[in-house]
Amino acid sequence: MTGSKPTWGSVGAAKRDALLASIPAEWVIPDDIFPPESQLEVTSFPIKSGWFTPRELEITGCTAAEILDKTTSGAWTAEEVTRAFCKRAAAAHQLTNCLSETLFPEALATAKELDAHFAATGKPIGPLHGLPISLKDNFNIVGKDSTIGFTAFVNSPATYNSTLTDLLRNAGAVLYVKTNVPTAMMIAETVNNVFGRTVNPHNRKLTSGGSSGGESALIAFGGSALGVGTDIGGSLRIPAACTGIFTLRPSAGRFPNFLTKSGLAGQESVLSVNGPMAAQLSGIELYTRIVTNAQPWLRDPKCVPMPWCSVERKEKLKLAVLWDDGVVKPTPPVRRALRETVEKLRKAGHEVVDWSAEGHKEAGDILDRFFLSDGGKSVEALLSGADEPIRPEMDRYGTAKDRGVYDLWQLHLERNALQKMYMDRWNACEGLDGILCPTTPYATVEHSKFRYVGYTGIYNILDYSCMTFPSGVCVDSAVDVPVTNETPLNEHDELAQKECKFLPPPHPDNASAVHGMSVGLQLVGRRLEEEKVIMMTDVVLSALS
Amino acid sequence: MTGSKPTWGSVGAAKRDALLASIPAEWVIPDDIFPPESQLEVTSFPIKSGWFTPRELEITGCTAAEILDKTTSGAWTAEEVTRAFCKRAAAAHQLTNCLSETLFPEALATAKELDAHFAATGKPIGPLHGLPISLKDNFNIVGKDSTIGFTAFVNSPATYNSTLTDLLRNAGAVLYVKTNVPTAMMIAETVNNVFGRTVNPHNRKLTSGGSSGGESALIAFGGSALGVGTDIGGSLRIPAACTGIFTLRPSAGRFPNFLTKSGLAGQESVLSVNGPMAAQLSGIELYTRIVTNAQPWLRDPKCVPMPWCSVERKEKLKLAVLWDDGVVKPTPPVRRALRETVEKLRKAGHEVVDWSAEGHKEAGDILDRFFLSDGGKSVEALLSGADEPIRPEMDRYGTAKDRGVYDLWQLHLERNALQKMYMDRWNACEGLDGILCPTTPYATVEHSKFRYVGYTGIYNILDYSCMTFPSGVCVDSAVDVPVTNETPLNEHDELAQKECKFLPPPHPDNASAVHGMSVGLQLVGRRLEEEKVIMMTDVVLSALS
Repeated sequence: MTGSKPTWGSVGAAKRDALLASIPAEWVIPDDIFPPESQLEVTSFPIKSGWFTPRELEITGCTAAEILDKTTSGAWTAEEVTRAFCKRAAAAHQLTNCLSETLFPEALATAKELDAHFAATGKPIGPLHGLPISLKDNFNIVGKDSTIGFTAFVNSPATYNSTLTDLLRNAGAVLYVKTNVPTAMMIAETVNNVFGRTVNPHNRKLTSGGSSGGESALIAFGGSALGVGTDIGGSLRIPAACTGIFTLRPSAGRFPNFLTKSGLAGQESVLSVNGPMAAQLSGIELYTRIVTNAQPWLRDPKCVPMPWCSVERKEKLKLAVLWDDGVVKPTPPVRRALRETVEKLRKAGHEVVDWSAEGHKEAGDILDRFFLSDGGKSVEALLSGADEPIRPEMDRYGTAKDRGVYDLWQLHLERNALQKMYMDRWNACEGLDGILCPTTPYATVEHSKFRYVGYTGIYNILDYSCMTFPSGVCVDSAVDVPVTNETPLNEHDELAQKECKFLPPPHPDNASAVHGMSVGLQLVGRRLEEEKVIMMTDVVLSALS
Repeated sequence: MTGSKPTWGSVGAAKRDALLASIPAEWVIPDDIFPPESQLEVTSFPIKSGWFTPRELEITGCTAAEILDKTTSGAWTAEEVTRAFCKRAAAAHQLTNCLSETLFPEALATAKELDAHFAATGKPIGPLHGLPISLKDNFNIVGKDSTIGFTAFVNSPATYNSTLTDLLRNAGAVLYVKTNVPTAMMIAETVNNVFGRTVNPHNRKLTSGGSSGGESALIAFGGSALGVGTDIGGSLRIPAACTGIFTLRPSAGRFPNFLTKSGLAGQESVLSVNGPMAAQLSGIELYTRIVTNAQPWLRDPKCVPMPWCSVERKEKLKLAVLWDDGVVKPTPPVRRALRETVEKLRKAGHEVVDWSAEGHKEAGDILDRFFLSDGGKSVEALLSGADEPIRPEMDRYGTAKDRGVYDLWQLHLERNALQKMYMDRWNACEGLDGILCPTTPYATVEHSKFRYVGYTGIYNILDYSCMTFPSGVCVDSAVDVPVTNETPLNEHDELAQKECKFLPPPHPDNASAVHGMSVGLQLVGRRLEEEKVIMMTDVVLSALS
């Protein structure tokens, strides 16, 4: 017993209460229109509830590019835009539990400063003038917690900003919320002992993915036109796929990641990166252009000096398609999305070849060993600070052993050989522009059923630039039924298929759990080919439309 | 006892004999002109001995750029050029023990193929057509050992090429020798139990530095117009400074380093890089341009996609000068070289400000801990393969303990904070172009006295791009006398100053050990600013001339 020390449970409860209390009364959803828990779909709330003004809906219905057109030309004030997004983000939190911190007063103060600047000079302060941008919880903002889901970090406000925080603010962005993450950002759903679970606004029984699942829920709800998440094994791409939005996982060094909080601080064998998340590709493109042109390499020692470099649009792509990684097969809707996408690409004149799963299983194994290589000591140290129990999703961190530096070096050699093998495979496929593959085996899943991150994790090991984009295919439980004559690849595959079984109606057992959900696919470029991946995604979308 | 297993001593002796035997009779220095051991200066041997033809002297007296002018235009055959360099390299080895492998027959065969190509097409095969390039021992060439000084690696010929080996050959280079290194390439002189010690051709009592000290001795002797070494703590820059030549330590990822041999394989906390070494700056420039334009990022997973990018010549530089790193003070001739260089820079109109040693001691400590972080297990494993004893210079590897992965991660955090602090210092010095500092505290030293690598090691920790260049100042034992009223900074400083005491003649005790030696200074740019560092060095040389 620790005497007067509060329990982790009470610390979390107080933090949750404080977060809710930070929402001004005007943005608290009135009881009489508050959707019941039984209402699974809540993205329609802003339009259907009548609680938002037409102007608020207009503003929050715009893309980031459209908003910037208005705010950088003086057509809209930053304050009006900020107010609209604060309200919609507040609603998103009340319905999906997607935030970790609010900065409403600070955001409005910033917006007013921006408006004063514009009034005085007739010019925007920078290319992001007046655009509200949401940040994942691990970005530090002075005066705000970055708990990353640990009780021990509650009420430990940051004393410095992340490099990206300063960069975005200097460009004129308005930071107004931080978004929820799983403990240590090492779970593919968004749940922790402080804030609890973030749910998917398209269907609250389902996960919005993780670890950037607060962001994805917020953006899918329309509470943010542009957000920033991070990715060390799929943490940008999985939540984007689960909620039907876009994200770019850049290669390490393209965007500044310095001074952010990590659950595995100092782990550098596979580098965490951050990237934009948005409902449209245009938001991804403008963010990438603006951030790389802000010369982040002068502020973050890990960044490479590569400003935005336009690539010519390539009308005929050569893509390789990975149908299956040999470990966990895609569930039926993901297979269909791949199939239909490939058909449309071919019809549009693109060349599509098959891509084998060579190296995929090994990459997943290596990633796993890197994460556990300190024997879980980092996570343990953060938990023990508040006598917080380890979450069941992270039980392996509780039993791992520090492998020692010599063994880690051997693991680096294994990883390097894999990187070289994969690069040689790419070179051998003459003229290959990119790889098309699942983002995850699932469209999304019911809470606690997300078990496999191999389709994303390999590209962290390889450090390739990747886009997750909505394929346009949505789960149809009448169509997406299991292939009956297939035997599972292994126990992981069996579990995944069993838990996500797609049985035709009227089968009652979980049959339509993900019915209607978008399937997000992944388009992969070589390392540091962010511009090309954005261009290729645009070309692919043209073929799909 | 291992029965019939040969001892490490006998394995090394046989390897040395085989190496000497690989020199054809025509290139063995005749006994009657063989310089006696007592003759310390041997760089004048090619001209004074009469053993080289005027044509051989003309060819081997050219810069790499001049040679390429002739070989790529067909004025000279690759074969004639190759023969001349093979002979001069053979002489260099006989006088300084600088080689580890010879590829004379292979080189001549390659040269003939290049000549046949030129005869048939009228065109060079690539931008390095017909240029002999020497490689440090750790570059793999199929069929040749890469012992990196370990007995266990003798008679284990490589089964694959290093990425750079292929790149250079594809560009038309002729690979003709590999050069000696210290054990594991982790000593700042060049000595190991297989090949013994490489000596400085300017004064054979002195070291040619390490670990790329076979290269520096060969190049200083005129046996190579362009060589490639590697650097993880100063291994390019120290030998360049010790022998009066140029080298560029690039930032990691600029040149391909894949599939090279390492004494600490898999160690990635501070990355080994490779770079060119040459007697003139023009060779450094052309190598950098050609290698970066060969798109190494398509072959080496660690390379960044940054082709050569010309920078405009800046006629007025702002440089910060580090007079002293606060750990080991430069010896008198190095101080004078810095002082005279700064005077000339100011006279030429450049701005020179002072640079403090903040972070320098810490960087050296971190580097040291990274090298020893596996508890010396990597080195031990390589030694034990041949029951080879550890060299006294490396005794710390024999007593270190594996620090564990968790502790390594904490050390990464320390390093990252240092990188950020140094970057912030740079940014705070408005308009700063580069840092001018010693390469080592010494001009060079007598064998076994090289004890401090802090002036180079910090820039490995920071991963900055650095040039070592000859300052034009040579040690003058009549001028370079100790400052009498100075107290040592610490025991390291005291030892360094004591061992390298510069006492005025007629003091007999070691007074003129390094008299006449060139002092090489270091010019440092930011990370991945190779082009700018080359440009700045050229500007500095103009001021010095």
